[in-house]
Amino acid sequence: MNFHFRLLGTDSNTAARRGQIVTSHGEIDTPVFMPVGTLGSVKSLDPFDLNSMNCKIILGNTYHLYLRPGVDVVNHFGNLHKFIGWNKAILTDSGGFQVFSLAKIRQITDDGVIFQSHIDGSKHIFTPEKAIEIQTFLGSDIAMSFDECTPYPVDREYVKSAVNRTIDWALRGKRVHNSPTQALFGIVQGSVFVELRLDCLDRLMEIGFDGYAVGSLSVGEPRELMFEVLERILPHFPEERPRYLMGVGTPEDIVECVKLGVDMFDCVLPTRNGRNGTLFTSFGKINIKKHCYRKDERPIDPECDCFTCKNFSRAYLRHLFVSRELLSYRLNTIHNVWYYLNLMQEIRNAIEEQRYDDWVKSFYQKRQLLE
Amino acid sequence: MNFHFRLLGTDSNTAARRGQIVTSHGEIDTPVFMPVGTLGSVKSLDPFDLNSMNCKIILGNTYHLYLRPGVDVVNHFGNLHKFIGWNKAILTDSGGFQVFSLAKIRQITDDGVIFQSHIDGSKHIFTPEKAIEIQTFLGSDIAMSFDECTPYPVDREYVKSAVNRTIDWALRGKRVHNSPTQALFGIVQGSVFVELRLDCLDRLMEIGFDGYAVGSLSVGEPRELMFEVLERILPHFPEERPRYLMGVGTPEDIVECVKLGVDMFDCVLPTRNGRNGTLFTSFGKINIKKHCYRKDERPIDPECDCFTCKNFSRAYLRHLFVSRELLSYRLNTIHNVWYYLNLMQEIRNAIEEQRYDDWVKSFYQKRQLLE
Repeated sequence: MNFHFRLLGTDSNTAARRGQIVTSHGEIDTPVFMPVGTLGSVKSLDPFDLNSMNCKIILGNTYHLYLRPGVDVVNHFGNLHKFIGWNKAILTDSGGFQVFSLAKIRQITDDGVIFQSHIDGSKHIFTPEKAIEIQTFLGSDIAMSFDECTPYPVDREYVKSAVNRTIDWALRGKRVHNSPTQALFGIVQGSVFVELRLDCLDRLMEIGFDGYAVGSLSVGEPRELMFEVLERILPHFPEERPRYLMGVGTPEDIVECVKLGVDMFDCVLPTRNGRNGTLFTSFGKINIKKHCYRKDERPIDPECDCFTCKNFSRAYLRHLFVSRELLSYRLNTIHNVWYYLNLMQEIRNAIEEQRYDDWVKSFYQKRQLLE
Repeated sequence: MNFHFRLLGTDSNTAARRGQIVTSHGEIDTPVFMPVGTLGSVKSLDPFDLNSMNCKIILGNTYHLYLRPGVDVVNHFGNLHKFIGWNKAILTDSGGFQVFSLAKIRQITDDGVIFQSHIDGSKHIFTPEKAIEIQTFLGSDIAMSFDECTPYPVDREYVKSAVNRTIDWALRGKRVHNSPTQALFGIVQGSVFVELRLDCLDRLMEIGFDGYAVGSLSVGEPRELMFEVLERILPHFPEERPRYLMGVGTPEDIVECVKLGVDMFDCVLPTRNGRNGTLFTSFGKINIKKHCYRKDERPIDPECDCFTCKNFSRAYLRHLFVSRELLSYRLNTIHNVWYYLNLMQEIRNAIEEQRYDDWVKSFYQKRQLLE
């Protein structure tokens, strides 16, 4: 098994952790943000773009890749890395989230989920075994257990049964998982019910996984409630395993959740916002389509060293966006992904130097400044 | 005046010419193909992409840039080069073609054309003087005279009046043109009527331009008729000035027209086809969405050295295209533009080595081969 996690240190004033994940496709410093490569590309970017941003791991969506191009196509190339031309690490989700949020579900049983493709309505079934099998064919470095996601708000009894099913599915997935080069993470469900979360965690730890994720947070619950749940459950996670908060979040969310001890994040925000013209900066978000940028010669963020900021003005980026030029999506995405990856680098540096608290203060202070 | 044209040599068996255009933004070897950067970007590419393909000149559309971002925005940056971050040469068209093909025309008078924007219906007027003024503000290296374009088929009398108007407009444009760093080309109109074309050419030469373009060909007339018209008029063009065939064309069209003595081409074909999944290769066109490419590990064209062919398989490109991933448009466009630029390099080499005829034969022979 090539996968392991090293905890390199913890911050003295917070629960922030500095670590390193080792995979057969390279080492990943944590806390880490994983850009989302839904269908085998981080939308509008190629692998060289990601490499030049020092990106070490991306996420692929099992549900999407299963439907297109199909597991047989990816497997024909050996693994997803070779198919898409990316030789660094890949984490695949289990397909659970998309099945529950995107597909038309026909039936959830203890055995698995029967759903219709969001593309052509064709009927498919995902079982916990099949979710692992697909991910093994995709050859990702980190696979996720198939889980039952819950919305918010949600009835406690329903959450309880989803936790039970998630545990059962995690066990079944673990039993069939046999790739020597792929780690398998368990997913803690339980919505905002701390005791259900802790029960889920305990039972997952009993089965034993290479890492532990938190699912079904940041799905509509108040932000403070998410932090409270994390603050109460994270201390119970095993110290020597990476902790992955799925689908989170804004820069502010990440800064706060690192403080609580999260190691891994993924979110479509930098890529999706880039395509919508919302750009992240050290002084907050800007909307590039605003009229005030029409003749603005400055880069998006004068403090940013990304390809976009080093070469193009706000005025040109505004023009491209307003004119719906394809180059707009690429240049905006490059900036936003760079922003997130650079944010994580700053976070890692601050933890290493035992000054995460101070760094968080300056992070918020910069946001008070007018652009 | 920084602009001049050097005729370096002619092919011994054909009328093909090898030349060099000198501008204040670099030297351009001819025959040359100019990728179309309609709104200030060659769709999906950035200036570094173009540089890495050894592209020396792109085209910008005056009509489009006038509407978006507006001349005041570009001029605020000094010129179009600085606005878009491209330090090589730019040719701007006169806006004539778009006004006649894209906008809703309200009125054509001897003074100019009143039209409605295709974007918001707002009313504008282009006169020959204004077309030059806009191009001066854009700061392109080569400006085009405002002309009246004709469709095909078209009545001879109408063409005659369009030629008269084109001459009058060319003269008026030339009178107001005063940029020391910008060349001004005249445009020969006359549809498929050779004597009208020659009359137009004579009168343009009398006014005197830095180069001579042929407009309103490849607008629906039989291909052989286009070649016939060119074959009969090109020998009358001044030898010491570049000859630009506007809006042409397919690789086969370019190969034939070079043989007749054309020096410059532009066309949306490589970029538009790229976005439609049609890819140019040494053995003809392929449609990347075809099912047969589903697991095809080969590059688009095994003979091609472009970024796309060196790094990605047909299967991955098919997947990206079928899934409408933004990266698809970029990778396809990189390949197609490279194909065109590389084709021109091969053409230039063949002319230099006095073997253009043989090269043309092998060009067609390769197309007989099965991919």
